[in-house]
Amino acid sequence: MRPSGRKTDQMRKVSFERNVSKHAEGSCLVKFGDTHVLVTASLEDKTPPWLRNSGKGWVTAEYGMLPRATGDRMKREAAAGKQGGRTQEIQRLIGRSLRAIVDLEALGERQITIDCDVIQADGGTRTASITGAWVALHDCLKWMEARSMIKTEKVLKDHVAAISCGIFAAQSVIDLDYLEDSAAETDANFVMTGSGGIVEIQGTAEGKPFTEEEFASLMLLARNGIAELVEMQKQAIA
Amino acid sequence: MRPSGRKTDQMRKVSFERNVSKHAEGSCLVKFGDTHVLVTASLEDKTPPWLRNSGKGWVTAEYGMLPRATGDRMKREAAAGKQGGRTQEIQRLIGRSLRAIVDLEALGERQITIDCDVIQADGGTRTASITGAWVALHDCLKWMEARSMIKTEKVLKDHVAAISCGIFAAQSVIDLDYLEDSAAETDANFVMTGSGGIVEIQGTAEGKPFTEEEFASLMLLARNGIAELVEMQKQAIA
Amino acid sequence: MRPSGRKTDQMRKVSFERNVSKHAEGSCLVKFGDTHVLVTASLEDKTPPWLRNSGKGWVTAEYGMLPRATGDRMKREAAAGKQGGRTQEIQRLIGRSLRAIVDLEALGERQITIDCDVIQADGGTRTASITGAWVALHDCLKWMEARSMIKTEKVLKDHVAAISCGIFAAQSVIDLDYLEDSAAETDANFVMTGSGGIVEIQGTAEGKPFTEEEFASLMLLARNGIAELVEMQKQAIA
Amino acid sequence: MRPSGRKTDQMRKVSFERNVSKHAEGSCLVKFGDTHVLVTASLEDKTPPWLRNSGKGWVTAEYGMLPRATGDRMKREAAAGKQGGRTQEIQRLIGRSLRAIVDLEALGERQITIDCDVIQADGGTRTASITGAWVALHDCLKWMEARSMIKTEKVLKDHVAAISCGIFAAQSVIDLDYLEDSAAETDANFVMTGSGGIVEIQGTAEGKPFTEEEFASLMLLARNGIAELVEMQKQAIA
Amino acid sequence: MRPSGRKTDQMRKVSFERNVSKHAEGSCLVKFGDTHVLVTASLEDKTPPWLRNSGKGWVTAEYGMLPRATGDRMKREAAAGKQGGRTQEIQRLIGRSLRAIVDLEALGERQITIDCDVIQADGGTRTASITGAWVALHDCLKWMEARSMIKTEKVLKDHVAAISCGIFAAQSVIDLDYLEDSAAETDANFVMTGSGGIVEIQGTAEGKPFTEEEFASLMLLARNGIAELVEMQKQAIA
Amino acid sequence: MRPSGRKTDQMRKVSFERNVSKHAEGSCLVKFGDTHVLVTASLEDKTPPWLRNSGKGWVTAEYGMLPRATGDRMKREAAAGKQGGRTQEIQRLIGRSLRAIVDLEALGERQITIDCDVIQADGGTRTASITGAWVALHDCLKWMEARSMIKTEKVLKDHVAAISCGIFAAQSVIDLDYLEDSAAETDANFVMTGSGGIVEIQGTAEGKPFTEEEFASLMLLARNGIAELVEMQKQAIA
Repeated sequence: MRPSGRKTDQMRKVSFERNVSKHAEGSCLVKFGDTHVLVTASLEDKTPPWLRNSGKGWVTAEYGMLPRATGDRMKREAAAGKQGGRTQEIQRLIGRSLRAIVDLEALGERQITIDCDVIQADGGTRTASITGAWVALHDCLKWMEARSMIKTEKVLKDHVAAISCGIFAAQSVIDLDYLEDSAAETDANFVMTGSGGIVEIQGTAEGKPFTEEEFASLMLLARNGIAELVEMQKQAIA
Repeated sequence: MRPSGRKTDQMRKVSFERNVSKHAEGSCLVKFGDTHVLVTASLEDKTPPWLRNSGKGWVTAEYGMLPRATGDRMKREAAAGKQGGRTQEIQRLIGRSLRAIVDLEALGERQITIDCDVIQADGGTRTASITGAWVALHDCLKWMEARSMIKTEKVLKDHVAAISCGIFAAQSVIDLDYLEDSAAETDANFVMTGSGGIVEIQGTAEGKPFTEEEFASLMLLARNGIAELVEMQKQAIA
Repeated sequence: MRPSGRKTDQMRKVSFERNVSKHAEGSCLVKFGDTHVLVTASLEDKTPPWLRNSGKGWVTAEYGMLPRATGDRMKREAAAGKQGGRTQEIQRLIGRSLRAIVDLEALGERQITIDCDVIQADGGTRTASITGAWVALHDCLKWMEARSMIKTEKVLKDHVAAISCGIFAAQSVIDLDYLEDSAAETDANFVMTGSGGIVEIQGTAEGKPFTEEEFASLMLLARNGIAELVEMQKQAIA
Repeated sequence: MRPSGRKTDQMRKVSFERNVSKHAEGSCLVKFGDTHVLVTASLEDKTPPWLRNSGKGWVTAEYGMLPRATGDRMKREAAAGKQGGRTQEIQRLIGRSLRAIVDLEALGERQITIDCDVIQADGGTRTASITGAWVALHDCLKWMEARSMIKTEKVLKDHVAAISCGIFAAQSVIDLDYLEDSAAETDANFVMTGSGGIVEIQGTAEGKPFTEEEFASLMLLARNGIAELVEMQKQAIA
Repeated sequence: MRPSGRKTDQMRKVSFERNVSKHAEGSCLVKFGDTHVLVTASLEDKTPPWLRNSGKGWVTAEYGMLPRATGDRMKREAAAGKQGGRTQEIQRLIGRSLRAIVDLEALGERQITIDCDVIQADGGTRTASITGAWVALHDCLKWMEARSMIKTEKVLKDHVAAISCGIFAAQSVIDLDYLEDSAAETDANFVMTGSGGIVEIQGTAEGKPFTEEEFASLMLLARNGIAELVEMQKQAIA
Repeated sequence: MRPSGRKTDQMRKVSFERNVSKHAEGSCLVKFGDTHVLVTASLEDKTPPWLRNSGKGWVTAEYGMLPRATGDRMKREAAAGKQGGRTQEIQRLIGRSLRAIVDLEALGERQITIDCDVIQADGGTRTASITGAWVALHDCLKWMEARSMIKTEKVLKDHVAAISCGIFAAQSVIDLDYLEDSAAETDANFVMTGSGGIVEIQGTAEGKPFTEEEFASLMLLARNGIAELVEMQKQAIA
């Protein structure tokens, strides 16, 4: 039995609240149960140095957690003077995931920065970030389209969404919350597109190593879950 | 005429949403118009080194802005590797303001850390932070009282709230929004208690120096505004 | 009774020693009793990036204390790897105070950097810094005038000086030394121009909140003290 | 055809040189073709703070590249003042991989730090690091066994080795060198134990998303390659 | 001919002003011509971690330059966030030089920190620092002796002083000022004790390599100069 | 007797292995006994800002130690976030030593960066670095000559090599290993050219001051040793 009483293939309640920022070109408050992430997409009229005069743009991401997003207060990274290894790992993952479904040439020489700030954490902050980031990115592109800067359908090639799966109490389950995450034997994150392509897989044995069969069962759960998430993204932007 | 159409002595719509964090002992989403600050109060069973074995506790504050809380995206302080001078100035002010109405001996050897994170900025983030922080602090103390750790009325000696006033288009106005703040000739922040005592005054001439008469008119506006804010705090915790 | 035996409205002995630096365009060793600050004004032929091609110049300030300027040795900020919050607060205040009396357009696209380094501290380092900085700035402008770069009277619109006042042992007193500062119930810093305009007010309740009447008595002390300081600045540059 | 002329399932020449450090308790110079990593295992008589008095030990890893290990000289991280995101990601992966096959209780309250320093890079530095680290760790444990501190077979539960696979020129290939890595459409790293359990999977679409079938073909290549690597580890320590 | 008109073996005017700090246990404003260094000696009742319970004390030094001590304003190291390589080199040299003439066991488990802050620079700041530091250290030890903490003659085994020599315009000269230092072909710093022992020699060819004969001529100049400096130290503390 | 059984004027076995890096324009693994330093010379088509449009090039050096190059594991400088004072001192010394024998105008507007990374340390890492760096630099220049960029004999004016000497157990000895270095009373490093010119001398009394006679005996040892090292450099590049 899962602590939350969910079925093994049951995700938490997912919601997307759009236009939550007065300033950002695109924004989305995404919730996976008690995990809440505020995502903004900021358009900047510059690109990283290595793309100058290439005709191509860039999409990048930054990730942060409010100090008391978690059960115990964590040290504020700005006060500590650097971003930790986990933060860097996650923001690199978010950036790669979004670039996988963006045509950077069609974007033109501009940069979109996605900020994912975890307001409240209960497991799965990186998968919620990616899933919500797609919505914020979409809205940013629509904002640009409204100003005749781009055609959204040329830039945004597909949906992208992410979910965690893991082996908890010897069972494969989807969308682990914090209680499950802390106790899981295996923890895997999947990032897939709307058309079913895989963008990123990260599987980690927390306790003992896992088998190919176990991994296959996690991938199956993820495939179905991500299909659901993509459906919800479609409704959110409808 | 003020850009927002407000009267000179009219504050923006102020609201306090309590218990917005699943984890924090006290929390409050405070809004002064389009300025939104998420405040959490975190209880920690330790004190700063210089208070060890003193029998006294400590209240401290940290302040941050999400990178796209503002019109243009600002560099994330965690990525920049340090907190800017403005950030440090504000978080020191918030800490001092709260300590002015807390009996640190009655609190006992514990620390409460107030995190003020600006979700969206439209002027007056420090005054909204202080005013909302009082509510989060109150709720943290009530949480402690429920566990027989303290008596709230012994620790919390008074209300504290803050408001900005300034001279905009040659008129003294209260609660400046971003448009006014950018153009104000004089900008002053007042922190006062529920019983009318002054905790902190910061007045700055942005363009030309101001007179004592002008300053007196700002203080009068502030006194009335803060009295209103304290009234709203009382309703919020009722 | 004040520890120094001074009357409530009596400042410490103030002196300005000009041209103390072989290299700087303007310099001044300012003493408020045992508080000694070495101020240099450095002319640089560049402006901050945001002023480029604006035709306007800039005046900025940096502040530091020698490690043993104080009773106990403090950690050297260069060794610690960053400037503390107090340092940043003070240097921002000094910069704002000087810009209030400088015509940045008349200065032209140049930057003057004021370095205030506390050689010995006994309370009131920020007010001594501002008051002495005016002298160093004046001499730097005269240096420029001698090279036909500017007209001093066009750039330097007024005097500016600063003094601290506070409530010590239930009495309003001027120019607090360290002993008084540590024990004061209320501490306020005032920055005013030669013509009596107010540039900056910072009042802080250290213990219990203060009243408007108390604050008015501090402002009155400050007004008289600053008038005296301006008089001394005039004699110093005569 | 692969640039190196290798067959799709052919790894580069792999070698382990043991005892290359006069000082370290265990050490290994591991080569995967032109990728050379110097690994040392250092025993320290302390544990991280969170394990104190737990009776458990810790294995951790640090990773670095010499500035000219690569085709173009990279900035030295010590001079830059911080470790980049990629470095942190890799060293966290190495540490997790080793802890998966170590019994931390049998190790006792000690820490073994694995340093992986890339002397020369030609793709696959993280997989060479993990594979060589097992040898260095083994030798460190033997060193401890010789001093009656532990029983190696109780602490070291299994082998662990790693290999990268990817889709290059539309074919699944094993052990990508730099030329292949730069041009690969999909890049995956696998970490497995001697008994075939999976410890870590990281798959990333560099260009277009990949399919489950493609991923399965990469996993098959990896399974065989890692079995070979484990065999080579056995010979190396024989 | 030297730019200053000095003879080849003529040092600049040297002076020591003692007790220039109200707070420090020992202090000295040392001047070598236009090079002015403020030295303080601070007694702290602690030792570095590696000396705890050893019965031995420590003498260490820190060095800094005010930003406008030089002809062009240099960036403040505290603002830059780190001490440069030159600063670290010099402060390590000062510390070693002083420890060479101190009996650390006779000092007992205490630390004396010597701060050398360059108020104005005109070449030779490190040699002035060492020479003045001896005076400040002496006075700090006398302060301790007056409180029956130590016997000065047991702790302070000898004098130590330093001078720079160099080859300027093909001639060996002593005590280079900035003009000479910038143009010197060879630059050497000598640190010697009152009894003529050598503590530190640093010789550097700036342009072309130098010969043993040239070096011997520099050493001869230094020996005489340091003897003079030691004589002046004796008069200063008389 | 020396711990290693060497005679007082006997250096350790010295060897140079060239072309150890697949990528670098010049490289050398230099060994002085158990001290092993990997040196690479990297050509970059840029110069430091202060040489732009001067027609002159630059040679600079960076130095590092692998964390377990030493008997006890040292903290990785990249993880610590800064290079220590000793590291900066050594890399500045290496750079100066090489520039002493390079004609920077003949090099043209290019920079060669020498990286000296200590793989294993047993005393004398800075002298091994300088001596090996000359070989790597030579090979880098030959690489450039082969591409008609320069004439090696115009750029490389002479050999340069370095050796440490010290007073150990009351005897002057050459090329101290770690055991001797830790116990030496005096430690001196000499950098000289092939034609016998002195580039750098650094002598430090570790315990009691040394005499001119002692220093002369160290210099004599160094002169002979460096002549041998230069001979070995010639053979290495033959």
